[in-house]
Amino acid sequence: MKKNLKTIVITIGNEVTSGHIVNSNAAWIGSALDGIGLSPERALTLRDDVNTLAKEIRKASKEYGVILITGGLGPTHDDVTKPALAKAFGVKIFRDAAMLKELAKFLEGFGKTMSPANEGQADVPDGFKGIASKFGTAPLLMRKADGCILFAMPGVPFEMKNLMETEVLPRLKKLLPKRVIQRTVLHTNGISESTLYSKITEAGAAPKDVELAYLPSLGHVDLRVTAEGKTPAEAAKKLRRAEKALMKVAAPYVYGRDGVSLEAAIGERLVERRLTIASAESCTGGLFASRITSVAGASRYFVEGLVTYSNNSKIKRLGVKPATLLKYGAVSAQVAADMASGVSETTGADIGVSATGVAGPTGGTPDKPVGLVYVGLCINGNVETREFKFREERRRNQERTVNEMLGWLWRMLR
Amino acid sequence: MKKNLKTIVITIGNEVTSGHIVNSNAAWIGSALDGIGLSPERALTLRDDVNTLAKEIRKASKEYGVILITGGLGPTHDDVTKPALAKAFGVKIFRDAAMLKELAKFLEGFGKTMSPANEGQADVPDGFKGIASKFGTAPLLMRKADGCILFAMPGVPFEMKNLMETEVLPRLKKLLPKRVIQRTVLHTNGISESTLYSKITEAGAAPKDVELAYLPSLGHVDLRVTAEGKTPAEAAKKLRRAEKALMKVAAPYVYGRDGVSLEAAIGERLVERRLTIASAESCTGGLFASRITSVAGASRYFVEGLVTYSNNSKIKRLGVKPATLLKYGAVSAQVAADMASGVSETTGADIGVSATGVAGPTGGTPDKPVGLVYVGLCINGNVETREFKFREERRRNQERTVNEMLGWLWRMLR
Repeated sequence: MKKNLKTIVITIGNEVTSGHIVNSNAAWIGSALDGIGLSPERALTLRDDVNTLAKEIRKASKEYGVILITGGLGPTHDDVTKPALAKAFGVKIFRDAAMLKELAKFLEGFGKTMSPANEGQADVPDGFKGIASKFGTAPLLMRKADGCILFAMPGVPFEMKNLMETEVLPRLKKLLPKRVIQRTVLHTNGISESTLYSKITEAGAAPKDVELAYLPSLGHVDLRVTAEGKTPAEAAKKLRRAEKALMKVAAPYVYGRDGVSLEAAIGERLVERRLTIASAESCTGGLFASRITSVAGASRYFVEGLVTYSNNSKIKRLGVKPATLLKYGAVSAQVAADMASGVSETTGADIGVSATGVAGPTGGTPDKPVGLVYVGLCINGNVETREFKFREERRRNQERTVNEMLGWLWRMLR
Repeated sequence: MKKNLKTIVITIGNEVTSGHIVNSNAAWIGSALDGIGLSPERALTLRDDVNTLAKEIRKASKEYGVILITGGLGPTHDDVTKPALAKAFGVKIFRDAAMLKELAKFLEGFGKTMSPANEGQADVPDGFKGIASKFGTAPLLMRKADGCILFAMPGVPFEMKNLMETEVLPRLKKLLPKRVIQRTVLHTNGISESTLYSKITEAGAAPKDVELAYLPSLGHVDLRVTAEGKTPAEAAKKLRRAEKALMKVAAPYVYGRDGVSLEAAIGERLVERRLTIASAESCTGGLFASRITSVAGASRYFVEGLVTYSNNSKIKRLGVKPATLLKYGAVSAQVAADMASGVSETTGADIGVSATGVAGPTGGTPDKPVGLVYVGLCINGNVETREFKFREERRRNQERTVNEMLGWLWRMLR
């Protein structure tokens, strides 16, 4: 089996070739494979056409040691992966009695009975092993033969991901040579990719015996370190050494590692320091509250969020003075400050955060153009504000504002 | 040239095969091609490897009439598309003097001078035509020969999109037979794909002379109708007829068309009917407010949103009675009702919407498990509530709840 671990990912579906949906499944699979050291040679997307699929699968089974297929395993006439697999290997499809039982049990759990379409989900091409999914009626199909291991998974993202994690990846790991790959990701905020790169390079902190990647996205830059060794201890040692060198430069910007989100890092600090928080949002419309409460257990520190869109609700709920609104306008540092202290005072939270601005695309004036945003932060009664001038479209302005609020908050809590 | 318009999209880059970035370029190109009636047969993603690329490009040039390549045209050592093209067709690369001039002018516009890396951007494989980009230094490369038209574009999304729109699509349109494609999408909510399919099929409402696709996603199903004709009038006529037939069945579920979001459809109805709205959220943590305010001009109808996470803030801000919280618990139909009417009363909004539940993963009890959610809707003083039992992870529970709130609200406004 181990002679060839060349890997191909095949996505099936007209909705993908035609661009109606973005192929995030292929990216997720590529990244999961990359994580175990088995980066795919290529990704192929094909339409729901039995003959083409059969031909490509047969061809791939000769060239590749590992084939991962996603999509086309549902119960409708569009779902052609099973007939294509049968045709590719010249086998018949049979109904698997054990699968049928598991399927009935699965449906029972939802108070549903078996329909003919459901029954078909227990069909398996000869030579394949069917493995039931915990999250849907479509199974995982697996075939090991002629030096090629093939997995066919449903296209529904959370069904596919669960099967990858519980069934596919553990099996693939066993095929890999005994070399160990360890990886860690340091998440940074408040510094650009090029500045971070310069700082690390100039300080000579870029480690030599590991792979270092800079991965920027909206509002933050990830540092991914990959170490390889003959033993876990060797890889771990390299990783620790690299991290230590990097942290000498990057520590002020690192808020977490290995998938921790900025909002989760903030949550941890708030719990540690026994602080509570409340938010008053105008232009961000609840996006800050939504981000903070996306973390499990946020109720321990998040007291209340207010989306005070109208002047009246800023006055009534937060105690912003009508005179301040009149003098400076709703989009002003003064109002941002009063919103932050107002939400802290009226809720009794230790920290009050606020945002007011022109998200756009309408509502801009020469004085206060689209993208002008003020955010406020009140900690134990001390208020500060910051001004931003974004220029982008509405949703992006809202997202950038919330990223700035979270980044600022995190730096104050650090 | 017209004998074969089979189309392939090739994306180049290790960062795409390894899943570090999602291949949204292929989706965008697929959708743009689909829009002119030239839906790609397949999408292929390959690593930055000159030999593999050259081999695949040569092969594709024999099988396909149209090849679109994106990526690998930048100035660094990773960018191997040009050498691959040269190798594929056995030609040399030369420096194009005219391109060099345009490049100098482009850089001048940014106050920059030419570097050696920049100069390389004017290199063109023999037999290709280089077309300068208005948005970057990487050009479009085009080759027409042996019944195959090939375009190589940069991978930077906005550079690629601009070249597609201004150069590639107009040229491809000329190759297409004189037929017209028109398309419309009807967005539905509150009905499953299979039920919608059954209803339309049973009513004989599935139009014969157009293509009908069912495109489901979280919380809604799109009906995409594609009509073809020799003239715009003919295609439009087919489209109108098909829509009329479909609407006989689907009208109660259709909230908009051609890209309108559910929250925008709700906004339109609220403006039409001069109604205002406010929200009181617990488990959804501001996600409802964030969705409603993602629409430009939401300030015309959205008065205020409250994220009342603590019992105390439910009591103080919304007037929920302590006795009700004690008797039924915060996650209950009674509290959802009081939150909806409370937010409507305290803000003066015509409509109050609420959600309270156990988003998870913690906080569940045998009586009130993770995924139990109550939502409330108060319109002019009349309150109703609904119960949902989701079972998924936190973020998905929050999203499904908000989709149900929006769907319900829209049906009440219809």
